[in-house]
Amino acid sequence: MTCIVQKFGGTSLATLDLIKKAALRVKGEVEAGHTVVVVVSAMAGTTNTLVEYVSDLSTTYDRAEYDVVVSSGEQVTAGLLALSLQNLGIPARSWQGWQIPIYTSSHHAQAKIDHIDTDLLLHDLNKGTVAVVAGFQGLSRNGRITTLGRGGSDTTAVALAAALKAERCDIFTDVEGIYTADPNYITTAGKLDHIAYQEMLELAAQGAKVLQRDSVELAMHNRVRLRVLSSLRDTPGTLVTSENELRATRKHISGIAHSLSHVKLTLCALPSTLPLEEIRSLLNSQNIPLDMGHQKLFPCGTLLDFSFTVPATEERRAVEMLQTAKNKFNFRDLLRNSDVAKVSVIGSGLQTEYSPSHKLFQTLREKGIEVQAVAASDIKLSVLIAAHEAGRAISTLHTVYQLDAEEN
Amino acid sequence: MTCIVQKFGGTSLATLDLIKKAALRVKGEVEAGHTVVVVVSAMAGTTNTLVEYVSDLSTTYDRAEYDVVVSSGEQVTAGLLALSLQNLGIPARSWQGWQIPIYTSSHHAQAKIDHIDTDLLLHDLNKGTVAVVAGFQGLSRNGRITTLGRGGSDTTAVALAAALKAERCDIFTDVEGIYTADPNYITTAGKLDHIAYQEMLELAAQGAKVLQRDSVELAMHNRVRLRVLSSLRDTPGTLVTSENELRATRKHISGIAHSLSHVKLTLCALPSTLPLEEIRSLLNSQNIPLDMGHQKLFPCGTLLDFSFTVPATEERRAVEMLQTAKNKFNFRDLLRNSDVAKVSVIGSGLQTEYSPSHKLFQTLREKGIEVQAVAASDIKLSVLIAAHEAGRAISTLHTVYQLDAEEN
Repeated sequence: MTCIVQKFGGTSLATLDLIKKAALRVKGEVEAGHTVVVVVSAMAGTTNTLVEYVSDLSTTYDRAEYDVVVSSGEQVTAGLLALSLQNLGIPARSWQGWQIPIYTSSHHAQAKIDHIDTDLLLHDLNKGTVAVVAGFQGLSRNGRITTLGRGGSDTTAVALAAALKAERCDIFTDVEGIYTADPNYITTAGKLDHIAYQEMLELAAQGAKVLQRDSVELAMHNRVRLRVLSSLRDTPGTLVTSENELRATRKHISGIAHSLSHVKLTLCALPSTLPLEEIRSLLNSQNIPLDMGHQKLFPCGTLLDFSFTVPATEERRAVEMLQTAKNKFNFRDLLRNSDVAKVSVIGSGLQTEYSPSHKLFQTLREKGIEVQAVAASDIKLSVLIAAHEAGRAISTLHTVYQLDAEEN
Repeated sequence: MTCIVQKFGGTSLATLDLIKKAALRVKGEVEAGHTVVVVVSAMAGTTNTLVEYVSDLSTTYDRAEYDVVVSSGEQVTAGLLALSLQNLGIPARSWQGWQIPIYTSSHHAQAKIDHIDTDLLLHDLNKGTVAVVAGFQGLSRNGRITTLGRGGSDTTAVALAAALKAERCDIFTDVEGIYTADPNYITTAGKLDHIAYQEMLELAAQGAKVLQRDSVELAMHNRVRLRVLSSLRDTPGTLVTSENELRATRKHISGIAHSLSHVKLTLCALPSTLPLEEIRSLLNSQNIPLDMGHQKLFPCGTLLDFSFTVPATEERRAVEMLQTAKNKFNFRDLLRNSDVAKVSVIGSGLQTEYSPSHKLFQTLREKGIEVQAVAASDIKLSVLIAAHEAGRAISTLHTVYQLDAEEN
């Protein structure tokens, strides 16, 4: 019997009516003869409310207790979806992370799954019961509740699909698949039928919110066939799969991702002899990623300004840490600028194209958009620009890289 | 070191500000040198919302999944109160029922605690950490989440106080203690300084909502010193304790309880040969309690009407079961009447008083209030009357039994 994992996001479970609709989708797979594991997010908005409770109480909160609070939303939807399935005559039961258990690291709020014990789950699945698993949650080895970071239910789904050797992992969401750019920004954005793991990984890492980055990485390593599709429409969605499967049909450039959730920090008048790696290490030691680093040397040659981005959610912690180290690094001022956007072109086509960055810079220069910093990998080219220019930049690049839906 | 258990109800934790106020109360006990265990309810309103989700999905729901859904509110407040304590510099951590564990029966939605494993909890308490325990929840022996019935956090608190041999169990709520009658109804209701377990038990059983009945029973059996007091005012509250402690100071009649949450069912024209115990057994077999039973014989002598009350929450199930058994019991009609109130006079003074029911009936007759049924125990005398007469009846009895605050 083949096993299918279905994951429903918060917008697909936002009301009791939507939960009943999700139950009908599960019923379809059960009636097709599949063993079904369902992974649920919290009702849309719930987790945000819970996060606000915690951050209203304190800025430097205990992440273990944060996890206790924010993981509760998935418990509710797991129970409600199990009840909806029972109403349809489908045997079902809910599972919390600690009941399976889904063991994770103890790195609260950002935990990584290290082992899923499938014995209890399989025992129930083999009786013909649908397992409805609360996503996002795990159990640390010392018995505390952990969470996998925002969007972590995707990772729960993929990890279960890998552990159960599922035929497919379907991620149901409020869009119809993966797009060449955010369709809320770019009306000509087109849906992709297929995308390679590696390219999806960069899209997710660079700001596309459809899938959590960790989930794509896990799917890639475990060759989980991942499908992103709408919970409300019967369209095939986007298949995320290995590059070999795609070579025939794949496009050179997959899409344009963007992120508005970063803040640029600038340390002014640092001694030019300071190894900038020390700054990166300091922030990384507290799990704050530093990205888009760039520097400007003073005419005298002995001083420089060093700028970089951090996630907006980590800004306060980053600033506190840097101020504490002010004497050590010997900078004059710390500037912050939240009017920044990171726009990234993703695709293996970047490797074969002649000077891909040249085309990008030329386009943005023609539009009068200043590029503040650049970062590149084999299949990604990111620029940092002013946030208020983002819409125009994305739309222009979408056309230049021939992604507009008319031209597909 | 003495251990104190403090329990905060939903109205005492309804907002972040109230949670911070609760944290200050806990801090007071910590600074007084006590080992403190805190038990929390869900934020006021949360559990009702969750119960509505479940009952909107289905009337005959799986109680195991009901427990999964409705137990989530306490998880949130446990985490938030632990965070608030940490903000005050008090080491604290949250505990879910399954983490301790608090083992219960598998009787979902109405589970009974059968054993609390205190090892992990004591290990943490001995390090000087405050334990913030999610009330209402437990773990069945087969690893499912259970709940203890509405108001079950009181029972969690008392059970922990018993297991930890706590010096005292303080129940913080939105009223200042136990009153001679519901102060929302009777403006002359007075607060009791003391009440005996047995009398408190009857008050709770007969409708007083301040303490869950099970919690009083557990306190009585384990001689837990229970105190009910306001979370917002610094008043001593009411001490619930054993009769010996009270003999000197205790009043003859403790108070008047009432319940508007019952429905009267009448089976019409039953054969008078039918053992009425069969009807009680049928309902009890599905955990539906039958109360205030009374019958009226037809002039012919071969038929009778049998009336009784069931909790309004169980009405639908009771009616379904009785309709199914219509041929067996051979009744003509099933009438329902939700305009009923149960009013109870509670107190050991009833034993010593000459014909206590006589005074009650006389008073109600003088006021033109019809008594539909009567039930009595050593320390309780209950009457069933029309709901719209309840306020007048309670107020009259409150005066007749000399409970008005002016006369105390």
